[in-house]
Amino acid sequence: MSTIPPIYDVIVVGAGPAGYSSAIRCAQLGLRTACVDNWRNKQGQRILGGAHLNSGCVASITLLESARLYHALNHDLKKHGIHADNISLDIAAMIQRKDSIIDALGHKITDLFKLHKIDSFHATAKLIKPRQLHLTPIDGSEPYRLEGKHIILATGSSPIPLPYAKVDNEFIIDSFAALNMTTLPKKLAIIGAGVIGLELAAIWGRLGAHTVLLEAQESFLSLPDQQISREAYRIYTQQGLDLRLGARVTAAKKVGKKVQVEYQDQEGNHSLKVDRLIVASGRKPNTENLAAPEASLLLDENGYVHVDENCRTNLPGVFAIGDLTVLGPMLAHKGIEEGVFVAEQIAGKHTAIHYDTLPSVIYTDPEIAWVGQTEQVLRALGEPIKIGIFPFSATSRAQASGRTEGLVKIIAHAESDALLGVHIIGPKASELIAEAVLAMEFSASSEDLARTIHAHPTRSEAFHEAALAFKKMLSHIPG
Amino acid sequence: MSTIPPIYDVIVVGAGPAGYSSAIRCAQLGLRTACVDNWRNKQGQRILGGAHLNSGCVASITLLESARLYHALNHDLKKHGIHADNISLDIAAMIQRKDSIIDALGHKITDLFKLHKIDSFHATAKLIKPRQLHLTPIDGSEPYRLEGKHIILATGSSPIPLPYAKVDNEFIIDSFAALNMTTLPKKLAIIGAGVIGLELAAIWGRLGAHTVLLEAQESFLSLPDQQISREAYRIYTQQGLDLRLGARVTAAKKVGKKVQVEYQDQEGNHSLKVDRLIVASGRKPNTENLAAPEASLLLDENGYVHVDENCRTNLPGVFAIGDLTVLGPMLAHKGIEEGVFVAEQIAGKHTAIHYDTLPSVIYTDPEIAWVGQTEQVLRALGEPIKIGIFPFSATSRAQASGRTEGLVKIIAHAESDALLGVHIIGPKASELIAEAVLAMEFSASSEDLARTIHAHPTRSEAFHEAALAFKKMLSHIPG
Repeated sequence: MSTIPPIYDVIVVGAGPAGYSSAIRCAQLGLRTACVDNWRNKQGQRILGGAHLNSGCVASITLLESARLYHALNHDLKKHGIHADNISLDIAAMIQRKDSIIDALGHKITDLFKLHKIDSFHATAKLIKPRQLHLTPIDGSEPYRLEGKHIILATGSSPIPLPYAKVDNEFIIDSFAALNMTTLPKKLAIIGAGVIGLELAAIWGRLGAHTVLLEAQESFLSLPDQQISREAYRIYTQQGLDLRLGARVTAAKKVGKKVQVEYQDQEGNHSLKVDRLIVASGRKPNTENLAAPEASLLLDENGYVHVDENCRTNLPGVFAIGDLTVLGPMLAHKGIEEGVFVAEQIAGKHTAIHYDTLPSVIYTDPEIAWVGQTEQVLRALGEPIKIGIFPFSATSRAQASGRTEGLVKIIAHAESDALLGVHIIGPKASELIAEAVLAMEFSASSEDLARTIHAHPTRSEAFHEAALAFKKMLSHIPG
Repeated sequence: MSTIPPIYDVIVVGAGPAGYSSAIRCAQLGLRTACVDNWRNKQGQRILGGAHLNSGCVASITLLESARLYHALNHDLKKHGIHADNISLDIAAMIQRKDSIIDALGHKITDLFKLHKIDSFHATAKLIKPRQLHLTPIDGSEPYRLEGKHIILATGSSPIPLPYAKVDNEFIIDSFAALNMTTLPKKLAIIGAGVIGLELAAIWGRLGAHTVLLEAQESFLSLPDQQISREAYRIYTQQGLDLRLGARVTAAKKVGKKVQVEYQDQEGNHSLKVDRLIVASGRKPNTENLAAPEASLLLDENGYVHVDENCRTNLPGVFAIGDLTVLGPMLAHKGIEEGVFVAEQIAGKHTAIHYDTLPSVIYTDPEIAWVGQTEQVLRALGEPIKIGIFPFSATSRAQASGRTEGLVKIIAHAESDALLGVHIIGPKASELIAEAVLAMEFSASSEDLARTIHAHPTRSEAFHEAALAFKKMLSHIPG
């Protein structure tokens, strides 16, 4: 087996957000950089961007945009004084729009790699020694070795298969196939009401599928602030989602052109017949064939790569970032930040990542976003806290848009007034959270936010008003 | 003439954003508060909220929401795989939606006044002595006097009439009537391509009116950063707006069912026939009958109330806020902040307003928003600056939404790296500016922004990337 010269300064394995960000930053810092990736699109062609771009958030929000427009057409026209007949949907064309947007974004990464003189390999990589990779080319050509002074592992994650609901990607489908259905299922079930299940439900529910979410846990969305989760439950249910908690699926099989789903809850056994079943029961790190046993890469009991706070694995010169580690949640921007962080470490720069000011987002409609601690965690820690809440419905911007659901919740320390957490559910939450993240980066107090001028009329006023709520200042200024 | 007891701690004149915010804050601080307002809605009924709520931004964005939906129906359906026939528009119903949203918001202010035990008078007020007002009730009943230890003037502004284009509000209309047209003019001209003219053009242009803007100045939008103005010109023109600069209207008159507009530009005299003409040539402070001569309230040469930096007029106990003063631009949130600021002064609290971190917004589609200094001002001052620019088109969120126009421009001090200005044109600019305002409140550097994690995929990443651009870090991360 040949070894391809030269010996790179850095080889990045994986071209998702963590991997491509890291490769680009390495190259910008003057490091001789390669990136190995094995992703293929539906046509079997090479495309950079990884699962995130191709089957994750970006694909999901692109479809959601179409679904929202279709939903508005079916529900909102009359009140705006608009009329239209024969509204119909060509889902294949909708998917095609998503595919071409994603393809264009993937090609941009290719262009950036060229611009930054990053050598790009289309192969599956396996770590065989601390500084050596074994590459199996996707085109079937001969395997070879690649050497790098540093190796950054960024292979991401993939859906966890369920033994009792085997994916055939025709009737029982995974979250990737769920973004590529070309017909509308009349009735749809989703196993898992986590982030991905909810994002998929937002799309297909808005397109008109009767959507049932089967969630094994008794509680709904345990990670966000529980007040936000309750509000989300209320809003999603009102939108028509059929959320069934404590529903443990025991079997699912194709019966004719339907899927028969068996599940148990506190009341006993139930059976459900649907047109499609989506399995969205979580993701696992892609570490299965990442390293040869003789490389001795240390994984934890759940298969995540063991890293220290600097993303260093147990092997010299080998880093792991993004979904491969448990340093933070499985979020693209976490991976992006780690990618840049590791590149800078390798180049001898000293930076840091503030995981405690990392925003979390759920891309449903409305969106959910938060940063910092939840009320339940702070209460459990015994922190003295105060809470300011403001509903979007009391802002004129929300009233003008006709989208009045949701709220902003700010938690501050009862004595120091320091901001401890900001939790938002509502349209544009993913954009509004940016101000909250910056506020926490600067250790802002709620008074700081109250004293900052917010443009009127905007949704960001709800954030301002939630801070003012502590002071019983302007409490519901609508105009 | 009778004087109505009691003597109030504070009387606020005007119930627009500045006035109602001030009255509510006064009441919250325990001051015995009254508010006098003379606004009536189209049906002649009393409604709080002033021009801003009833004929300004809130009314405007409410209609723009409908216009955007109608425009999307006519232009975007196909690419989303959606089909609809016979798309039609009932403008009267669209206006009706706007009216009912605005009415509801106005009633909320009424409710807040009741909640805070603010005495509310429907009358026109004239200052006759430092602490005394002469009230002429709108219902035609007997005039009376009202006394307050403090008086806050917040009567706002109104459109400047043009002698050569007399408003009849049927064919030649002002900006209020322009938000209440119940038929679509085929061809529309607007005198003035300032903020209001552009906001009205955004609505009617999107609804399908061929819209010509006649702007007397040779330059377009002189207040924002000129790079943003050039980008705005390009985008608006591409959208179909017919922007004519250096076009000085000399005459306009009704001819049959049309309006004949005469104007001059560098090339000579021109004549234009349109279905409607909107006069949006600026606003003036409502000070004409605000004070009796014997009250000796000092105005400046342009009719604005003369105030010091604490919004105090030349008369003891009399303040002026909002559009009445030249302390800042005519923006609702400026008035709101001043309203709160003056209330707190009266209650003996010491606060401050940072006019230099006041965001400016133009509610077109896309929006324009900025805070801090423009490049042209900083260059004129000789400040050593550096500039970071990032186009929204390079973010995956913009690509997913199909709205890729616009950019973020960050200006920082070349040596200290301190943020000096942030300028945004693009969808959601009014929300994105909130983070920039907070950054400037905290005297952030561009490095601070570059080190702050931004959620992916969002439009706020463009702000992040513009900060990173200084460092030649990740320059175009699309995925």
